[in-house]
Amino acid sequence: MFVVEGKKSVFEFINSKFVLHKLFSKNTSEFKMINVNQVSHSELEKISYLTNPDDHLAIFKIPNIKSINKNKLIVGLESINDPGNLGTIIRTCEWFGIKDIVCSSDSVDCYNPKVVQSAMGSLSRINITYLDLKNFLKSEPLNKFGTFINGQSVFENKIRTDKGIVVFGNEANGISNKLRSLIDIELTIPRFNNKSYPESLNLSNSLGIILSEFSRKSNEKKN
Amino acid sequence: MFVVEGKKSVFEFINSKFVLHKLFSKNTSEFKMINVNQVSHSELEKISYLTNPDDHLAIFKIPNIKSINKNKLIVGLESINDPGNLGTIIRTCEWFGIKDIVCSSDSVDCYNPKVVQSAMGSLSRINITYLDLKNFLKSEPLNKFGTFINGQSVFENKIRTDKGIVVFGNEANGISNKLRSLIDIELTIPRFNNKSYPESLNLSNSLGIILSEFSRKSNEKKN
Repeated sequence: MFVVEGKKSVFEFINSKFVLHKLFSKNTSEFKMINVNQVSHSELEKISYLTNPDDHLAIFKIPNIKSINKNKLIVGLESINDPGNLGTIIRTCEWFGIKDIVCSSDSVDCYNPKVVQSAMGSLSRINITYLDLKNFLKSEPLNKFGTFINGQSVFENKIRTDKGIVVFGNEANGISNKLRSLIDIELTIPRFNNKSYPESLNLSNSLGIILSEFSRKSNEKKN
Repeated sequence: MFVVEGKKSVFEFINSKFVLHKLFSKNTSEFKMINVNQVSHSELEKISYLTNPDDHLAIFKIPNIKSINKNKLIVGLESINDPGNLGTIIRTCEWFGIKDIVCSSDSVDCYNPKVVQSAMGSLSRINITYLDLKNFLKSEPLNKFGTFINGQSVFENKIRTDKGIVVFGNEANGISNKLRSLIDIELTIPRFNNKSYPESLNLSNSLGIILSEFSRKSNEKKN
């Protein structure tokens, strides 16, 4: 099970394929045709993960593993640590039409309350699979992209961008050497400042820029 | 004055135009030719803003206000609240060659320890000015861009992108109506998912994508 807080997110999960287990609310009248448990503000303060609890808190069932859609671009995440980062990444992935995220098994849990909070409902519409990322990359015949400091510019690249796996590494260390050898195309977001710093971009910012550029390219090819 | 922690950031500030006031270190030998105060780990724990203090902590002087370079793209920030966000934004701005950030006077202080920490040295190389953003936009004859949900696609846009002011609004509310009327060109990062959600992208992710696209365009024009 996992917890969702906030009216908007709770509604988005109720309207998804996720199965509601229990719903607690200060204003039960806001949820018609659903069995809601009336709770007080002080009760919400006790069960909420938030410093300032919202009026609504729901418990949903963690779904069974679904199959991965390999006809669309897949995002691969290696050893992501920060729950806020993962939440933002899930939201940005949905914006750019990603259906599947695959995470190395040591990545932060996507049902962690901070991830749920910062993903803002997008978690209800994206399929996230935890697996042995190395084996997955090895066994998949898809194009594998990764972001590195010295790859080819993502802007100059003329490769097919609507299919394949784009891998992003851990916040501090990037993609590990054991995965690097499995990457077909090493990409870089060029620095446009003629300097050698900053050393790197923030992980979720890099992901946003790469996905935006992939979307732009594959959209231009369609038109 | 303000505090910088961590060897790498301290070095970057020492090598910048910032004036060092005091330096405290567990390993004074790492700083040659600088007057360093030897401190113990427990002393560092007392003066550090971090839960796990680094071995080096420096105090620098807040510099005098410098003039704004109007021949380059300027980033404008309205009512930014989150110090981690501002730090990431400063780093991403440096990546894309931004020299000047102008912040509305109610934005979070760029010398806040959390901003310094997440900006990772980039703060030492970017000029940040706090001002009345409305008056600044009113008085500047430059092109003013802003990001909105229903603007023109930043990808289709054929406007000049190497000069002007790109404005980003508060994390929760976006650009206020009082500033919106001063914006010449309303831009949007298109959703590539054929849906009407997520409602928005994270602020620093949007900024990264917009600056990356401006850089790509102005670079293509040059070549």
